[in-house]
Amino acid sequence: MSTEMTRISTLEQLRRLETSKLFQGSVIAIIILSALTIGAKTYDIPPLFAEVLGLLDNAITVFFLIEILFRFSVHQDKKRFLLDGWNLFDTLVVIGSLIPLDNSEAVLLGRLLRVFRVLRLVSVVPELRFLINSLLKAIPRMGYIALLMFIIFYIYAAMGSMFFASVDETLWGDVAIAMLTLFRVATFEDWTDVMYATMDTYPLSWLYYLTFIFLTAFVFLNMMIGAILEVMSEEQNAKQAQQAHDERNEMARRLVEVQEQLRELTELVRARRD
Amino acid sequence: MSTEMTRISTLEQLRRLETSKLFQGSVIAIIILSALTIGAKTYDIPPLFAEVLGLLDNAITVFFLIEILFRFSVHQDKKRFLLDGWNLFDTLVVIGSLIPLDNSEAVLLGRLLRVFRVLRLVSVVPELRFLINSLLKAIPRMGYIALLMFIIFYIYAAMGSMFFASVDETLWGDVAIAMLTLFRVATFEDWTDVMYATMDTYPLSWLYYLTFIFLTAFVFLNMMIGAILEVMSEEQNAKQAQQAHDERNEMARRLVEVQEQLRELTELVRARRD
Amino acid sequence: MSTEMTRISTLEQLRRLETSKLFQGSVIAIIILSALTIGAKTYDIPPLFAEVLGLLDNAITVFFLIEILFRFSVHQDKKRFLLDGWNLFDTLVVIGSLIPLDNSEAVLLGRLLRVFRVLRLVSVVPELRFLINSLLKAIPRMGYIALLMFIIFYIYAAMGSMFFASVDETLWGDVAIAMLTLFRVATFEDWTDVMYATMDTYPLSWLYYLTFIFLTAFVFLNMMIGAILEVMSEEQNAKQAQQAHDERNEMARRLVEVQEQLRELTELVRARRD
Amino acid sequence: MSTEMTRISTLEQLRRLETSKLFQGSVIAIIILSALTIGAKTYDIPPLFAEVLGLLDNAITVFFLIEILFRFSVHQDKKRFLLDGWNLFDTLVVIGSLIPLDNSEAVLLGRLLRVFRVLRLVSVVPELRFLINSLLKAIPRMGYIALLMFIIFYIYAAMGSMFFASVDETLWGDVAIAMLTLFRVATFEDWTDVMYATMDTYPLSWLYYLTFIFLTAFVFLNMMIGAILEVMSEEQNAKQAQQAHDERNEMARRLVEVQEQLRELTELVRARRD
Repeated sequence: MSTEMTRISTLEQLRRLETSKLFQGSVIAIIILSALTIGAKTYDIPPLFAEVLGLLDNAITVFFLIEILFRFSVHQDKKRFLLDGWNLFDTLVVIGSLIPLDNSEAVLLGRLLRVFRVLRLVSVVPELRFLINSLLKAIPRMGYIALLMFIIFYIYAAMGSMFFASVDETLWGDVAIAMLTLFRVATFEDWTDVMYATMDTYPLSWLYYLTFIFLTAFVFLNMMIGAILEVMSEEQNAKQAQQAHDERNEMARRLVEVQEQLRELTELVRARRD
Repeated sequence: MSTEMTRISTLEQLRRLETSKLFQGSVIAIIILSALTIGAKTYDIPPLFAEVLGLLDNAITVFFLIEILFRFSVHQDKKRFLLDGWNLFDTLVVIGSLIPLDNSEAVLLGRLLRVFRVLRLVSVVPELRFLINSLLKAIPRMGYIALLMFIIFYIYAAMGSMFFASVDETLWGDVAIAMLTLFRVATFEDWTDVMYATMDTYPLSWLYYLTFIFLTAFVFLNMMIGAILEVMSEEQNAKQAQQAHDERNEMARRLVEVQEQLRELTELVRARRD
Repeated sequence: MSTEMTRISTLEQLRRLETSKLFQGSVIAIIILSALTIGAKTYDIPPLFAEVLGLLDNAITVFFLIEILFRFSVHQDKKRFLLDGWNLFDTLVVIGSLIPLDNSEAVLLGRLLRVFRVLRLVSVVPELRFLINSLLKAIPRMGYIALLMFIIFYIYAAMGSMFFASVDETLWGDVAIAMLTLFRVATFEDWTDVMYATMDTYPLSWLYYLTFIFLTAFVFLNMMIGAILEVMSEEQNAKQAQQAHDERNEMARRLVEVQEQLRELTELVRARRD
Repeated sequence: MSTEMTRISTLEQLRRLETSKLFQGSVIAIIILSALTIGAKTYDIPPLFAEVLGLLDNAITVFFLIEILFRFSVHQDKKRFLLDGWNLFDTLVVIGSLIPLDNSEAVLLGRLLRVFRVLRLVSVVPELRFLINSLLKAIPRMGYIALLMFIIFYIYAAMGSMFFASVDETLWGDVAIAMLTLFRVATFEDWTDVMYATMDTYPLSWLYYLTFIFLTAFVFLNMMIGAILEVMSEEQNAKQAQQAHDERNEMARRLVEVQEQLRELTELVRARRD
């Protein structure tokens, strides 16, 4: 029990260190600098600077390893600890950062692991987790819009591949390729080149592109408005409205009490009359 | 009457099946996979997989046919059943999916019908209908903005075709062609190429493009803001505000009662005095 | 006085006719069709159709002329009538539409006047005026943002023309030309081509473009958010908040009355005691 | 003490002059015109006009110098005066504008100083300061989003430089270059050219681009929504909600008083009974 206590207080100290602005700032700086030096083979970095940065980078990983071990040893329910998404994420990032990278086999894998070391930033900045959590919450809301968009893209792509495949096989040869071409049109990327090519054969094909652009833009716009409104109704006025409602309820309760008091008083006066 | 009852309970069971997450998920998967295989002639799909998918796809159509027949037989007013937009839509999609596609004549029509089979997704996912309903409601609001945009586009296109037709016949030859070119400018698609071409002849024509871009962007931006505000005032605070209004009304009513009680009590006390 | 009365009732009837959906719809259709035929020299329009359309188009102008004359004759203060922006606009559009267009001199002016006939749409659809009024109201709010944008554009353009004029004279030769080039960069129109060209001479010039894009996008984004919030606080909750405030005031007034009544009653009881 | 008083009243008069619409308008016009003539070497400006403009421009600088000296002499705490960001900004802009520009050495520096003279606009228009203050306030909020964006860009850029460097060295040679290329993709600038080039070697690389575009667009969109909501909850309803809360509190207080009065009255009546 006493070791448990020591562990908890050590974890407390680790946490306090971790959440201090200075520690966070330097860890963020080291991770970003270290990440940039991985790819920056073409720049001339002083070897001493690179070495010191490498040591500091490894120190951060070791710090994270110690911190996660403490968190694990302190946690009551060992099974549920790993079922929590963020704990699993931290563990995987630390394990990934610990794998030695210099063995000549699997060079590509080693370099990929190095890249994902940048994810330790998410482990150190709680605001990033908050941000990612809120982004994850926004995904299901997008599900049905994605389905609707798929239907629009599919119908236009199927029609496009039927009619325009003879014009340009590389852009319209297939429903899948046509969907990629339509995504390009939806991002306005050289879409007039695509249109002018098909207008030579089908002079009215501008109708196809304009209706597609209006449809996707219209759905996208309404999706955005819907998203703003949904989030607003959820998080926004809710608290204020609840407070106002509570205050009005309190007043209504008091008014009922006032009426009750008045009724009693009237009874009293009437009783005295007799 | 008893057959009617049986039908209704069978429809109930069909509905319960239809709204179950598992059924919906598998129907969505089958329809999307089936839709993708139509266009994917160039990919090598195992014939067995394609055949099983085709059978499942037909099974869905048969299921929809049975469901819609039950819905029709149960509905009280047969005429109004088909006047409802969504019933008509479902019926047309099912009929369209039932037409045999393999007769050699009308190949294109057959393939188009196959494409529109993807619309059965709208029949199976009620959230998609809800989404489309809300999109349809947004259309009239856009009507006057469309008219204003038409006026802006028309005036600029007419001026453009007057002055720039001599510069580039394919871009400015006609008011209609000029409107298409201006739509291209509004999407920022290689608009500087169009501008630089006319600036050789009319050095001040950048004014034409910049005012056009600012005008359309300004109208579009204000339209978007207007749309957000309109939807907000309609759906958003409305319910909360109504509830608050009701609660305040209730309190005001009670206060009037309190005043009435007090008046009576005062009368009583005054009466006793005499 | 009696002629005045007749005029007012005739104007009433004209107004009722003008605001009827059928009249509005057909006038909009005729004006748009007529506008499209002006530019559509290259299409084959049946001469009879064009002639009928021309007659109907002139009939609309005559109708507007009559309507505006009635409005003028009925209006109390003739001077203020023309000082009102929309009356002036209507008068100018009608006068512009009445000028004969077929005299061989001033062909271009004649054709321009024809183009502006489409503005009669604004005279017939009150919703368009409402829209334009709300757009005009939004202009001053944009003024200071425009000034800030000008400062950003000017500083970047001046620096650009200093450093990059030697790279590409046609893009950076002048502060004015550089501002046009920066507007192009701000619309993302082939901006990488511009950047890659200067990066050959100044390898760090990507910093120039990225900071410029972030700055303008940031200002634009915040401007949009500001616009949404400003309009919202003005038009939106204002009415609801006022109503709530009034209702709460009414309740507070009643409460004061209740306290007054109670005080009087207490006096009464106390007086009786003696 | 009396000189101090005179100074304050003179400063008052300077301020009143400075905030007058006419003075502001003409100062803005002179600064903008003067700024434009610096770069407009290629245009033919009448020498007299340029000279008058130059004199007026210098007059404005002198006016600002006098104003800032008065402000400094009047200010109580001389140290804190310069620690205020805007005072420092004004002082630097005035000093920068006073440095003689015609000495042949340091021509570039002189011209740069001339460019930054346009910043005097910020000194004269208080609304611009208000705008810039609100923009500065928005920066920290963007910090974590920037960190998240950096992680996304870095991971994609590192992967891109690993796989695509062999395809196009100039676009993917380095993590830094790859991040620039990805920024180009994020602005939709000829992104399909980049994609088609890599799809020849890696046919599935469209997945790389589409996931990247969706991810960045999704994060950007949610950031925008978040920004709207955050600003809204801060500035928007806050005042109205506070007022409503205060009014309700006032009413609740009065109700408590009413109950107290009633209790006393009841005591009184009961006391009389005995």
